Amino acid sequence: MAVNFPQIVPADLKPVAGIELGYAEGGIKKPNRKDVLVMKLAQTATVAGVFTKNRFCAAPVQISKSNLASGAHIRALLVNTGNANAGTGEQGLARAQESCAALAGLLDCAPEQILPFSTGVILEPLPVDKIVAALPAAIADLKADNWFNAAEAIMTTDTLPKAASRTVTIGGHAVTMTGISKGAGMIKPNMATMLGYLAFDAKVAQPVLEQIVRHAADHSFNAITIDGDTSTNDSFMLIATGAGALEVTSTDTQEYIELRDAVTDLSRHLAQLIIRDGEGATKFMTITVEEGATVEECRKVAYAIAHSPLVKTAFFASDPNLGRILAAVGYAGIDDLDVSKINLYLDDVWVAKHGGRNPEYQEADGQRVMQQSEITVRVVLARGDQSATVWTCDLSHDYVSINADYRS
Amino acid sequence: MAVNFPQIVPADLKPVAGIELGYAEGGIKKPNRKDVLVMKLAQTATVAGVFTKNRFCAAPVQISKSNLASGAHIRALLVNTGNANAGTGEQGLARAQESCAALAGLLDCAPEQILPFSTGVILEPLPVDKIVAALPAAIADLKADNWFNAAEAIMTTDTLPKAASRTVTIGGHAVTMTGISKGAGMIKPNMATMLGYLAFDAKVAQPVLEQIVRHAADHSFNAITIDGDTSTNDSFMLIATGAGALEVTSTDTQEYIELRDAVTDLSRHLAQLIIRDGEGATKFMTITVEEGATVEECRKVAYAIAHSPLVKTAFFASDPNLGRILAAVGYAGIDDLDVSKINLYLDDVWVAKHGGRNPEYQEADGQRVMQQSEITVRVVLARGDQSATVWTCDLSHDYVSINADYRS
Repeated sequence: MAVNFPQIVPADLKPVAGIELGYAEGGIKKPNRKDVLVMKLAQTATVAGVFTKNRFCAAPVQISKSNLASGAHIRALLVNTGNANAGTGEQGLARAQESCAALAGLLDCAPEQILPFSTGVILEPLPVDKIVAALPAAIADLKADNWFNAAEAIMTTDTLPKAASRTVTIGGHAVTMTGISKGAGMIKPNMATMLGYLAFDAKVAQPVLEQIVRHAADHSFNAITIDGDTSTNDSFMLIATGAGALEVTSTDTQEYIELRDAVTDLSRHLAQLIIRDGEGATKFMTITVEEGATVEECRKVAYAIAHSPLVKTAFFASDPNLGRILAAVGYAGIDDLDVSKINLYLDDVWVAKHGGRNPEYQEADGQRVMQQSEITVRVVLARGDQSATVWTCDLSHDYVSINADYRS
Repeated sequence: MAVNFPQIVPADLKPVAGIELGYAEGGIKKPNRKDVLVMKLAQTATVAGVFTKNRFCAAPVQISKSNLASGAHIRALLVNTGNANAGTGEQGLARAQESCAALAGLLDCAPEQILPFSTGVILEPLPVDKIVAALPAAIADLKADNWFNAAEAIMTTDTLPKAASRTVTIGGHAVTMTGISKGAGMIKPNMATMLGYLAFDAKVAQPVLEQIVRHAADHSFNAITIDGDTSTNDSFMLIATGAGALEVTSTDTQEYIELRDAVTDLSRHLAQLIIRDGEGATKFMTITVEEGATVEECRKVAYAIAHSPLVKTAFFASDPNLGRILAAVGYAGIDDLDVSKINLYLDDVWVAKHGGRNPEYQEADGQRVMQQSEITVRVVLARGDQSATVWTCDLSHDYVSINADYRS
């Protein structure tokens, strides 16, 4: 029931020089299911990431953050599905460390050079023995042309694997980038989370890569929402393998801007795939808020709309319910908002003008837009020159069914 | 499908000396439907209220706030259903003023002495002519023993009228209090909002009454949520008719505390009736957060839990899904929260201990509690001595059906 989800085949996904991927079936979740993924990086690689802000962040998130912060040269990423290793205390940290040590032993590096990630059931002990036992098979499987399997290996309740590639030319050099993502609700602590991995073959200095990942995340994975919940394990990692000809050492260059924008564009695509496969989603909605005083207040308004169950059910019903959208704008938390200046559009249809119904608006026009599977809601605040966009889906009967029946 | 909703009959509702109520069928919504209510107050009455913080607050909200702030001696309240007079601009203000002027003419007072309230469809012009035409019938109907009809007159999508009475003895004087409320989603801009009116027969100085209404609202109507949306028209009004023997002139007295607590208790009951009749509700949930550093942070955590669609669907499914509750605690926005100290209880069952699953916890015990129609979720933050409680309901298939099919 995914919304306009592009068909993805292995041949669509380009190898990225400097990264090899290998999976195994570790039996963590179900038999005969890819659930362990190793991504091995070239010596030249740099890695930067953003992580969940949930205070219940999982053990692997704590270790990945710490290993990145230590300045250790990252050599591999290790992902398991089936168990999130969250809410597991000291034992959880020890088990995540153990998995890193085992992979480090096999790859002949230090445990701090491994970044661990887990997604799946929370509050259950990580079956580290199964992960360790699966590592040799994953390593034996390592190859550059393995992104499709990698995308499948990180799936939990996703109905479709999520991946894409791009080739861009920057500063006269071809740069190949491929990424994978997973997630279907923004959080499903029993068996899910949002994960994203994006690799490209340029060489990028660590501080520059950190700028790029924050920018890309803010305009992609941090701008999507299905149900407003935030997982314990959410992570987005950006890998510059350094195997290509392009080198970016400063944010003060045209190459930086072009690379940042290309990474952001692919990240946005990967993030939007999560929404398109959102639990019970029947509509893909783009919420754009313009002419705000700050980006922050534009995001507040956009999220108020995107999180409103009343707005989301109205979209499910294809009901151009202006009142629900305007009310969400009103309670978004901008204290000095002058509602008499607000304009609201559904795609190209001008529905609310100066805070009230546009006299020219015909319900039939709103109805026509609401029937579409992709809809843009555009709110113009008329109090500044900042803007923000978030992407979300509707709230359907299937969302309730999926989440109510999930553990039964 | 209301949850443990007490049966209410007219005889349960005690007249309050100093207030008379009268309704009419104005044809604003549907024929033969009570949709205009007049509440006429004694000369001795004082009135205080709290209103929606939605920036799209409706014309009647603006006028009621202004009339209260002017210090005018309030003589009557006028409520119509079927039209919210919200998002209607200058014309909306003029029409609300017109309805006040008409009632003032009939009651021989000034327009500023009337407080108007509207609930119903938004972005549509108020049919003020119908309201004005209905006023003589409403005035002819005025009587003290008319609270049940009043409760029915303010209903929109409510499935049951909401009302209750109490008699308390304070300072040796009997005080009779009766209240009515309405609302089924926290906002349904097409045809709803939250309204509450509570009258009692003590004489209370205006500044004291304002303290009482704020305290009562914070612990009742401001502590309930169905879907997190905030209406354009929400209002809660407290009326001290002054017709009884008790007089409270200062907050520095035992009588003040007893009266405040009695009003709060009845307000909470009226607020909880809204949750019990919540759209699609099958469970009544009390979320209590204890041992926080501030009331504010306790409320943040309680609302994060109460608003999480994943938590709400888990309750609908009777699934003791600890991960979803703990994750909501984690993303509630307390930056320095130490999750390793958190304890979580479902009624008397200790489910999470020090941030992880309680080793003694048996899923069967959690399951048993989750089968109940009334459940208390208790989170202990272990970082202070403040607490907060909110009430909410689950998220069911019927919620989606009601809100998706509402205008069709």
